Amino acid sequence: MKAVRLQATGQLRLCEVEKPAPGPGELLVRVEACGICGTDRHIFHGEFRSKPPVTLGHEFAGIVETVGPGVTDFRPGMRVTGDPNISCGGCEECRRGRVNLCRNLQAIGIHRDGGFADYVCMPQSQAFALPADLDPLHGAFCEPLACCIHGVDLAGLHAGASVIVLGGGVIGLLTLQLARLAGATRLVLVTRSREKRRLAESLGATATADPGDGDVIAHITAADGPLPGGADVVFECAGVTETMQQAPRLARRGGSAVILGVMPQGARIEVEPFDLLFREVRLIASFVNPFTHGRAADLIATGRIKVEPLISRRIGLSEAPDAIINPARGGEIRALVIPGRK
Amino acid sequence: MKAVRLQATGQLRLCEVEKPAPGPGELLVRVEACGICGTDRHIFHGEFRSKPPVTLGHEFAGIVETVGPGVTDFRPGMRVTGDPNISCGGCEECRRGRVNLCRNLQAIGIHRDGGFADYVCMPQSQAFALPADLDPLHGAFCEPLACCIHGVDLAGLHAGASVIVLGGGVIGLLTLQLARLAGATRLVLVTRSREKRRLAESLGATATADPGDGDVIAHITAADGPLPGGADVVFECAGVTETMQQAPRLARRGGSAVILGVMPQGARIEVEPFDLLFREVRLIASFVNPFTHGRAADLIATGRIKVEPLISRRIGLSEAPDAIINPARGGEIRALVIPGRK
Amino acid sequence: MKAVRLQATGQLRLCEVEKPAPGPGELLVRVEACGICGTDRHIFHGEFRSKPPVTLGHEFAGIVETVGPGVTDFRPGMRVTGDPNISCGGCEECRRGRVNLCRNLQAIGIHRDGGFADYVCMPQSQAFALPADLDPLHGAFCEPLACCIHGVDLAGLHAGASVIVLGGGVIGLLTLQLARLAGATRLVLVTRSREKRRLAESLGATATADPGDGDVIAHITAADGPLPGGADVVFECAGVTETMQQAPRLARRGGSAVILGVMPQGARIEVEPFDLLFREVRLIASFVNPFTHGRAADLIATGRIKVEPLISRRIGLSEAPDAIINPARGGEIRALVIPGRK
Amino acid sequence: MKAVRLQATGQLRLCEVEKPAPGPGELLVRVEACGICGTDRHIFHGEFRSKPPVTLGHEFAGIVETVGPGVTDFRPGMRVTGDPNISCGGCEECRRGRVNLCRNLQAIGIHRDGGFADYVCMPQSQAFALPADLDPLHGAFCEPLACCIHGVDLAGLHAGASVIVLGGGVIGLLTLQLARLAGATRLVLVTRSREKRRLAESLGATATADPGDGDVIAHITAADGPLPGGADVVFECAGVTETMQQAPRLARRGGSAVILGVMPQGARIEVEPFDLLFREVRLIASFVNPFTHGRAADLIATGRIKVEPLISRRIGLSEAPDAIINPARGGEIRALVIPGRK
Ligand SMILES: NC(=O)c1ccc[n+]([C@@H]2O[C@H](COP(=O)([O-])OP(=O)(O)OC[C@H]3O[C@@H](n4cnc5c(N)ncnc54)[C@H](OP(=O)(O)O)[C@@H]3O)[C@@H](O)[C@H]2O)c1
Ligand SMILES: NC(=O)c1ccc[n+]([C@@H]2O[C@H](COP(=O)([O-])OP(=O)(O)OC[C@H]3O[C@@H](n4cnc5c(N)ncnc54)[C@H](OP(=O)(O)O)[C@@H]3O)[C@@H](O)[C@H]2O)c1
Ligand SMILES: NC(=O)c1ccc[n+]([C@@H]2O[C@H](COP(=O)([O-])OP(=O)(O)OC[C@H]3O[C@@H](n4cnc5c(N)ncnc54)[C@H](OP(=O)(O)O)[C@@H]3O)[C@@H](O)[C@H]2O)c1
Ligand SMILES: NC(=O)c1ccc[n+]([C@@H]2O[C@H](COP(=O)([O-])OP(=O)(O)OC[C@H]3O[C@@H](n4cnc5c(N)ncnc54)[C@H](OP(=O)(O)O)[C@@H]3O)[C@@H](O)[C@H]2O)c1
Ligand SMILES: [Zn+2]
Ligand SMILES: [Zn+2]
Ligand SMILES: [Zn+2]
Ligand SMILES: [Zn+2]
Repeated sequence: MKAVRLQATGQLRLCEVEKPAPGPGELLVRVEACGICGTDRHIFHGEFRSKPPVTLGHEFAGIVETVGPGVTDFRPGMRVTGDPNISCGGCEECRRGRVNLCRNLQAIGIHRDGGFADYVCMPQSQAFALPADLDPLHGAFCEPLACCIHGVDLAGLHAGASVIVLGGGVIGLLTLQLARLAGATRLVLVTRSREKRRLAESLGATATADPGDGDVIAHITAADGPLPGGADVVFECAGVTETMQQAPRLARRGGSAVILGVMPQGARIEVEPFDLLFREVRLIASFVNPFTHGRAADLIATGRIKVEPLISRRIGLSEAPDAIINPARGGEIRALVIPGRK
Repeated sequence: MKAVRLQATGQLRLCEVEKPAPGPGELLVRVEACGICGTDRHIFHGEFRSKPPVTLGHEFAGIVETVGPGVTDFRPGMRVTGDPNISCGGCEECRRGRVNLCRNLQAIGIHRDGGFADYVCMPQSQAFALPADLDPLHGAFCEPLACCIHGVDLAGLHAGASVIVLGGGVIGLLTLQLARLAGATRLVLVTRSREKRRLAESLGATATADPGDGDVIAHITAADGPLPGGADVVFECAGVTETMQQAPRLARRGGSAVILGVMPQGARIEVEPFDLLFREVRLIASFVNPFTHGRAADLIATGRIKVEPLISRRIGLSEAPDAIINPARGGEIRALVIPGRK
Repeated sequence: MKAVRLQATGQLRLCEVEKPAPGPGELLVRVEACGICGTDRHIFHGEFRSKPPVTLGHEFAGIVETVGPGVTDFRPGMRVTGDPNISCGGCEECRRGRVNLCRNLQAIGIHRDGGFADYVCMPQSQAFALPADLDPLHGAFCEPLACCIHGVDLAGLHAGASVIVLGGGVIGLLTLQLARLAGATRLVLVTRSREKRRLAESLGATATADPGDGDVIAHITAADGPLPGGADVVFECAGVTETMQQAPRLARRGGSAVILGVMPQGARIEVEPFDLLFREVRLIASFVNPFTHGRAADLIATGRIKVEPLISRRIGLSEAPDAIINPARGGEIRALVIPGRK
Repeated sequence: MKAVRLQATGQLRLCEVEKPAPGPGELLVRVEACGICGTDRHIFHGEFRSKPPVTLGHEFAGIVETVGPGVTDFRPGMRVTGDPNISCGGCEECRRGRVNLCRNLQAIGIHRDGGFADYVCMPQSQAFALPADLDPLHGAFCEPLACCIHGVDLAGLHAGASVIVLGGGVIGLLTLQLARLAGATRLVLVTRSREKRRLAESLGATATADPGDGDVIAHITAADGPLPGGADVVFECAGVTETMQQAPRLARRGGSAVILGVMPQGARIEVEPFDLLFREVRLIASFVNPFTHGRAADLIATGRIKVEPLISRRIGLSEAPDAIINPARGGEIRALVIPGRK
């Protein structure tokens, strides 16, 4: 079969490899779609630790082809999405229930072979069923959605809350929809691209802002702005210095800034403690997807979260290395690798 | 009567003023003790807004002398502590229950006459009864304790938690005791003064550290340090750049840093978002004392929180202006103004 | 002016009374609409303590006619809704932030004159602005909605939760809408009346059930039922023995039953502790509207919660005593008293 | 080796069986002590499902004798306590993080061979290290303590809370100590036995009550009682009708009743919904020990929770069947089976 393999940092290519055989309790899944995420790019550049040689791709879904011994919950032909993050169950963090902080976290597509391939193998405990009649591409969004669900859970939104989302990529647009689903009635999304702002409006944003149009904070929080005084919760989904620093300042008194975006290790931002204290604002980091993948699968399966408009490009395996190595195209939200595609 | 009055920024002096008469629903209280807090110093220097001319002093307790019309819950002769922070009840924040964020917060000793005087007037709704047989000086600690209770509440400590307290002043030493009361079993206090570290050990710290002894973070969180991997909760109680930046780094994976310390308006600290995110650490600001003053009065009344060792100096009203204007003496924890003192 | 006054238990009639004058900090409001609630009936029958002689009516909204001295936030001509529950601010419960449990709770329309009258007086701190272009009848739903918001807050719903609402009255239909707004994606409403079930479906229920159709629990929670295994949260909004006992049994493992319905004092229900324990189900009582009236006003003002279909009858003051004394008509949801109506 | 085996419901005897060999990832542990719990009695009588033939005993600790292949975290000679509850990791409940509600829960000593034997086998992921110098009997209390920690976590106690514990058995006396550790400053324990009340006082109860002395509720909550108005949290730890019904009534306004005690399946208690509602009291069920066993091991290891006084009897394996089959002796708290004992 074909697989996009990272041989070493900076070396990524399409290879012919042996089709894997599912071990005990494992599923062999024919990949229908696998999303390209910024993390893949970071792995390629060595900014994020992986375990080459390895097939990349951690946002995948597909059809069970065969099952290994002892598999009871899945049968060939079923559509599944895979939670790539395999926690060890035995470390201190796992044993106190903080599985996303597992000290031995193994991720499919990072530490073991992933979904940029014709087939992928995974433990049945990482698989979640999807409906037979679901669009075959939609399951690839379960993984990023599960991360956003964790962030929205941590935010503790109440019915009628106000929200600002910084960044109109996949994470921002899924968080926007989730925040709306979770009760927010005023939602402002900030992103540079005009197309993304239009899309955000069609997905539930009650207002949008262009960071290029001057002082975003003044504009949004002004007495005649869309959210005078700021938002109950600000979601940082861009991962750049500017938005990280804006996030707490855009929160209202008593509000929160939830950080989803990833900045480079070692990079620092500036925060004004006086402002945090007197307005009693908190900063909440949200890391990956503890116990949320099943809920993501359900929300995709039922169509409650729209993912179709987030698909910017559909490519085959042969185009995948280039798409991973190069920066995302302007305005692109998600490029999906479709192994079956010619 | 005598009162220490701020006439204008930078002008503080002992004056002879009219003894006030309690208005409807008010108590006239003979002050037994009133603590000098860093905030008084900031007010004097104009770094913190007040409403001069005004008598300073917001950490006071005393004996009810007379009561105004309509007072039902208090009688002359009762000992009371006053919550200085009067929220308006009508602003948006008050009406959603966030009274500490009241947009019209009026503080006794800052915006209306306070406790550095023979007598102070306050609404009965701000007063809380203390036992007749309590040491007359102890009630002056209810106000700072109530602020620490809020911080410890926000931390959400569980039984068996680990805690680091940065700063061995009144706030740090009260927070230490509260964190222990609230279930922490491993408590490390960091402060420069040797005497304060000794005191912390006698008040429940299981270890202490001197920031002058090299890298505090490495020392505490090392595999053979007192808290390998860091603490469930770090309380920042020093209000300086160094400790603000240490706080999140001293938190363990999945832990929290609670910020109680006040830095100057405009001052900035540096934070590493990558570190917050991958270790899922949160920053929680804790501002004053919403709904906690009664609990503080109870913990002081029952002696569950020790305050006697926090009294460094007892002075009369005539010495108060100097003590407020000048920096706290080395090793000093709290200086109490005792109006009745010669 | 005209007012519907309870002279004593069992004596309710339309009277001519003096138009009140707003005291300091008070508003005089011309009532546009005031809902008749089951509580009014209980008060009439003496099953619920009130303070006759008093004008009933606690679900009101209207236009500010004049303002008393010291009123700053409202002007004549503004539309307002009133939170009827005036907490004292000074009792133990108020001072620890549990204002709905105030030991001296005074309710407009129960302990002081209410909204079944041409005019009502209220403290400005109980008033919340509504838009000038809002339907004049809709503001009367803020009070029940605020109670439902409290219940939904206590439930802690997450995005994608499942919910069962027992009872299709005003409380049930508002809770249904709020639960949906707060993230529930599967919502089953149970009520006897066919019309109410149809209405529930149009307001967001994904399924409904008729308790007359046999075993509701088996029906809903069966493997092929609308919520196999039960719901994350069950809201009891009927206030009868049958639904109270169903509520915890309809909750899924780890789920909650939120009790909003009022049963007569002294009445008892049976609960099976073994079932609660092994399925770890909790029972959460939700009493009135602490800090939620402003959010209710906002959700009505923005039309996020639909109230028009909940208005079953519009009557004048002269018809009000009869409508209060007699049981609600079959299928009736809310009857509104419109003082201006001929 | 010797083992106390349940052959079938009602048939329990000491047998000679093969010493087990640890499978992959398993530890073979020489049992130092194993507590006899009411659950063992229920299993014997068939009131609680088990999987005979099986060796009973789920509250055990001991010394690692040998380790199976792939064991990395433990070595022979280490002292360990075992969490008996093995969740499957794959069911719906496990995958949403509610592992105590696992649909395939397998308990050591109930569904697979347990600790009333010379040796017991367990997966390393269920084992937690204890110090070499710990009293060899104390580790047997980790399991019940872990259940109590879950209950105390769910209670959400704050510093300075008031607590009532109903029942002075192991669960009650451990909960008492934990509640104190977690911040309660007023603690009343109710139990019939005079010795247990004395013991409770020595372990931190500030008052005790004998349910035989008349109306416990009136006595405790009276204006001059130990907790006027009731407690912030009531822990039901007796598992009888009387205390189940008292629990919510002993809670103060806005308080909670946490149910730990087990009543027979099908048994019902009476609750007054009006009382729950108007005082906004909640009922919280707490089932076994999700993610808490490690914390229990730590609190036993550090001696923060006292267990020595809870040991009423030390018996050998030969006496175990009788001790399990017959009711606990009067005043007995915990009987420990010590396999090494002659
Ligand atoms: N916490 C977690 O568990 C988790 C999980 C997955 C991903 N992530 C992280 O989340 C972040 C977002 O992921 P993504 O997949 O959505 O990536 P993305 O497509 O790169 O999204 C970021 C978006 O931010 C916008 N942006 C850039 N500068 C901005 C500015 N100054 N103001 C406002 N918007 C700005 C860009 O859109 P415009 O061109 O329109 O400005 C860009 O599309 C990444 O850092 C990713 O690593 C975190
Ligand atoms: N959030 C609130 O509601 C609230 C309420 C009251 C007070 N506060 C604030 O809380 C802070 C503490 O108040 P306080 O009354 O306790 O004041 P304080 O006596 O000034 O306490 C701060 C202590 O921090 C120690 N410190 C200074 N630099 C340090 C370092 N690098 N590492 C470790 N410790 C260091 C000092 O002791 P050594 O000399 O021993 O180092 C000093 O005593 C202040 O900023 C105050 O404004 C906040
Ligand atoms: N907790 C609070 O703060 C709060 C605030 C306001 C009101 N309440 C209480 O909330 C409850 C509901 O108030 P409401 O104004 O909506 O009153 P309501 O109109 O009397 O609503 C109750 C509804 O329950 C339905 N019902 C009766 N028996 C039922 C059964 N066996 N199964 C399912 N549904 C049944 C009835 O509709 P069908 O005829 O269609 O069955 C009825 O309309 C009342 O007890 C009220 O006192 C509580
Ligand atoms: N939820 C969980 O996860 C969990 C875990 C373990 C155990 N449990 C359950 O927790 C309960 C307690 O366990 P245990 O091991 O401590 O059992 P236990 O020794 O039987 O303790 C119950 C105690 O309650 C006292 N009691 C009986 N009637 C009373 C009354 N009317 N008022 C006050 N006290 C009364 C008895 O002492 P006196 O003779 O002094 O009255 C008895 O010692 C049991 O039901 C057990 O099954 C639950
Ligand atoms: Zn792990
Ligand atoms: Zn205010
Ligand atoms: Zn009150
Ligand atoms: Zn399971």
